[in-house]
Amino acid sequence: MHQEIGFIQDLAVVMALAGVVTVLFHRLKQPVVLGYIAAGVIIGPYTPPFPLIHGEQTIQTMGELGVVFLMFSLGLEFSLKKLFQVGVTAIIAAVSEIALMMWIGYEIGRAFGWSAMDALFLGAILAISSTTIIVKALSDLGLKREKFAQLVFGILIVEDILGIAMLVLLGGLAQTGELSPGIAFITLSKLLLFMVVSLLAGIMVVPRLLGYVARVGSDEMLLISVLGFCFGFCLLVVKLDYSIALGAFLIGAIMAESRHLHRIEHLIAPLRDAFSAIFFVTVGLMLNPHVMVEYAWPIAVISLAVVLGKLVSCGLGTFLAGSDGRTSMRVGMTVSQIGEFSFIIASLGLTLKVTSGFLYPIAVAVSAITTLTTPYLIRFADPLSQKLARAMPSAVSNVFALYGQWLSSLMPRSSGPTFFTLVRRIVVQVALNLALVSAIFIGVSYGAYYAAPALSAWLPDAHIQRVVLWGGALLIAMPFLVAVWRKMQSLALLLAEVSVNPEHAGRLTRALRHTIAEIVPVLAMVGVFLLVAGLSRTILPPTGYLIGLLAGAAGLTMLLWRWCVKIHASMQIALRETFDERPDA
Amino acid sequence: MHQEIGFIQDLAVVMALAGVVTVLFHRLKQPVVLGYIAAGVIIGPYTPPFPLIHGEQTIQTMGELGVVFLMFSLGLEFSLKKLFQVGVTAIIAAVSEIALMMWIGYEIGRAFGWSAMDALFLGAILAISSTTIIVKALSDLGLKREKFAQLVFGILIVEDILGIAMLVLLGGLAQTGELSPGIAFITLSKLLLFMVVSLLAGIMVVPRLLGYVARVGSDEMLLISVLGFCFGFCLLVVKLDYSIALGAFLIGAIMAESRHLHRIEHLIAPLRDAFSAIFFVTVGLMLNPHVMVEYAWPIAVISLAVVLGKLVSCGLGTFLAGSDGRTSMRVGMTVSQIGEFSFIIASLGLTLKVTSGFLYPIAVAVSAITTLTTPYLIRFADPLSQKLARAMPSAVSNVFALYGQWLSSLMPRSSGPTFFTLVRRIVVQVALNLALVSAIFIGVSYGAYYAAPALSAWLPDAHIQRVVLWGGALLIAMPFLVAVWRKMQSLALLLAEVSVNPEHAGRLTRALRHTIAEIVPVLAMVGVFLLVAGLSRTILPPTGYLIGLLAGAAGLTMLLWRWCVKIHASMQIALRETFDERPDA
Repeated sequence: MHQEIGFIQDLAVVMALAGVVTVLFHRLKQPVVLGYIAAGVIIGPYTPPFPLIHGEQTIQTMGELGVVFLMFSLGLEFSLKKLFQVGVTAIIAAVSEIALMMWIGYEIGRAFGWSAMDALFLGAILAISSTTIIVKALSDLGLKREKFAQLVFGILIVEDILGIAMLVLLGGLAQTGELSPGIAFITLSKLLLFMVVSLLAGIMVVPRLLGYVARVGSDEMLLISVLGFCFGFCLLVVKLDYSIALGAFLIGAIMAESRHLHRIEHLIAPLRDAFSAIFFVTVGLMLNPHVMVEYAWPIAVISLAVVLGKLVSCGLGTFLAGSDGRTSMRVGMTVSQIGEFSFIIASLGLTLKVTSGFLYPIAVAVSAITTLTTPYLIRFADPLSQKLARAMPSAVSNVFALYGQWLSSLMPRSSGPTFFTLVRRIVVQVALNLALVSAIFIGVSYGAYYAAPALSAWLPDAHIQRVVLWGGALLIAMPFLVAVWRKMQSLALLLAEVSVNPEHAGRLTRALRHTIAEIVPVLAMVGVFLLVAGLSRTILPPTGYLIGLLAGAAGLTMLLWRWCVKIHASMQIALRETFDERPDA
Repeated sequence: MHQEIGFIQDLAVVMALAGVVTVLFHRLKQPVVLGYIAAGVIIGPYTPPFPLIHGEQTIQTMGELGVVFLMFSLGLEFSLKKLFQVGVTAIIAAVSEIALMMWIGYEIGRAFGWSAMDALFLGAILAISSTTIIVKALSDLGLKREKFAQLVFGILIVEDILGIAMLVLLGGLAQTGELSPGIAFITLSKLLLFMVVSLLAGIMVVPRLLGYVARVGSDEMLLISVLGFCFGFCLLVVKLDYSIALGAFLIGAIMAESRHLHRIEHLIAPLRDAFSAIFFVTVGLMLNPHVMVEYAWPIAVISLAVVLGKLVSCGLGTFLAGSDGRTSMRVGMTVSQIGEFSFIIASLGLTLKVTSGFLYPIAVAVSAITTLTTPYLIRFADPLSQKLARAMPSAVSNVFALYGQWLSSLMPRSSGPTFFTLVRRIVVQVALNLALVSAIFIGVSYGAYYAAPALSAWLPDAHIQRVVLWGGALLIAMPFLVAVWRKMQSLALLLAEVSVNPEHAGRLTRALRHTIAEIVPVLAMVGVFLLVAGLSRTILPPTGYLIGLLAGAAGLTMLLWRWCVKIHASMQIALRETFDERPDA
């Protein structure tokens, strides 16, 4: 064990100092995050007397685990239902925030005379807020369960998704010098597909398996199983080039549907607390006071721009989407910082050698400053919104009130299923089934790509290989395709009913409706085939084989129709059961 | 975060596989440790299809954390009172085990034609059992709170202490080729002094501070404070060249006296479970099946020797110390393996380049085999002891029964304080106070050695420097010296009472008793001075200065007598209060 003294020493320094500051900052009634970051600065290599850490890499790795556990815990506390509730507002607020902050960042960079690429990366660095800092600050302040906090979490998830897309787009832009809307669209679609499919599949499988483990075994077994799922899923996500934070969040959201949610939260809390402390200390470790002095002016301007820009853009977006003034102010004040995502974007620029060296330390410094201000801003939001409400001229507040009334008049208001709600439900079900079908064909195509050598050894004929692969994917997708067909039949009946007016069509009404009800599903299936063929073009068999394959599949589908309907129904029931189950107290 | 994919991948593989095996082995009703080790072998670099781990070093480091948390939890569950109860038996059993196993190991090594040094190291490798494996196996089997388990834990602590001494002695022997009993004595005395002093000081300070943290703060604060203490103390212990396992155990034993013990155990359990899983996987990682095949014969012989040798030596030692046959059998069967300590000794031999390269893999293989057999042996102990009891000729069992009766007749049996118990109590108190005094002078000497440059700049005169240092140490030690003086006075009075018989001394009785009561404490203090002077010889001032210093100290002591008595009494009360407090439910 004597080889590990360096590591134990580092951990001892981090933990001992963290232990002291956590008590100290609690006594001073300051958020503990600040204390951890301050501890990091003290420990760090840039402050006297001397670096107290020897193996910074290992401590950074432990800090990464902190991000995983923080995001996982966030996922555990998030419910899909609530995300649907805040969905539209979150999207509007996040998009307006990202757009405005990218523009502000770019303009500031140009104003300081930096290159266009530096300015663009600065914009991207300022765009995304820090989930970990916000989660920590909100739970320190005891506000995590408030309504505005749920909205903030929704915004953060949308931001995370858009941020991941931005990373991919920036990478392409930096390498090729151009950006096509097509690539942006594909990137976002893939991400959305991945999230939908993993949530669907995960919620169908993971809570059931955890339920089994929780019944037969001890806390240790449950914990190790939870960690196995968590890191296994993170690995999958990372392999698909998404961030580990997204993976941890998604698997947390999946496990949030488990009946044993509270036991899991209880087991994960000590791991999260221990490693998130290390993570925040590592943020402090990276802070170099000398760079802060040298670039004091840009850092000050950018920090101010982050606080004001995010407050205005995100707050305004929230307000425009229909929230009241107080909630909008609180949301705007909460997201006023940058964090781990900014470091990733800054280090991408460095890796691709398209940005200057000063951008990374500036990002860290601005992140540290805005992290320091975040808890104060959150606490300051309510007094400020009250003061503003009092100081506001009545004309302005009347306009705001009218806007709110107008917005709520737009909302559909009805009880019982209308034509609109019926159609929407069918469309959502078709979309979910199509997502699964797409994922199956894309998955098989990817798998075929990576297993190409083994496949060629086993099936030398390339045509036959494709027939087997594509046919296999079709077979797996069959229950979902049957479901799509049946949903389209229902939709077609509805459409036929509504679109053909007996007063105009007269005697032809029945025939017309029948025709529509027959033709729409067929047309839809042709569309589905074209989609699937496009997604799986790398394994699509030549036309002759394809026709044979489709004919065979059609025959097989007739034979297995009942089985397909049954298996799909039981999957649907399993999903609904898991959703409807309330966690044990 | 993308830099850390390798590490996350490793962790994902370890955790996912551990999750599967923990469920699988639970279903098969096998101890989970075996599953973890098997997972390690599958993951490891020596088994097909290919190494699944990329950064083995980082995973090993995480495994080290598992050892820390396992030992810390063990400390939390151990009570000093119970150690005192099993103390004598544990020492007899551990010493007989270590002596016999070293001899067996040496003889086996020589029999295989290995060098004397290889054989000696093999003996040392086989001497110490694996605390972590035993703790895990016993808690898996639900036997951790049984009486024999408490005895085993006592044996393991004694073994750990002797093992640390052995490491130091082997290191010296390998480098110089000789071993003096003096060095052995000093090594053991230092270790004992360190343990006594850190337990005394720790129990006085740590539970109070934790109580403060627990009252004002959240679970997170308590956890971070506990981890801060744990790793801080481990660092101190490692800096003093003791093993991190000893440090984690000691600080656990100190915290076991906290009122918030159950909360601490609850918070630490997930960390322990997660990291001990990783630790056992790393044990499997090191297992190379090829070396096992090549050295199959020695490995088989040594494994058999470990199981039988430890069973006989430790079981017999336990029996001879007065335990019944069933307990002795269970103790012997439980300690029948080698583990982490053996790896340390084997790697010491490699580092000093005095042993052959095959010794390390053999140690790992034997450890793996005996770890695999441990849970089965523990479960087999009871049936075997019953079978033996039935098969035993009545003459033999009569001898055994007589031995037990004879032993218990040796035990002092009385109610109320006798002369013996009074003297023993005073001697223990004097010894504890002397330990503290010794630790103060040794600590100041060490500190002066490390702070020599700074001290010389501040106090250029070497004599004055020593006067300040030694005087300072004397000042700190004063309350304890006063306590020693007062206890020696009581002891002298008792001795005077007993040793002077009025029938013989007649009229001189009072005078003689008075003389003894006056002289003994003075003589004792001269002895204490000689001890202290010897321990602190590096900072002892020259005679002239020393006499002045002692005279000054004597005067100061008179002045501060009441204060010294008071402060010592309040420390004693603090210690007793902490001891007497029961943990919250």
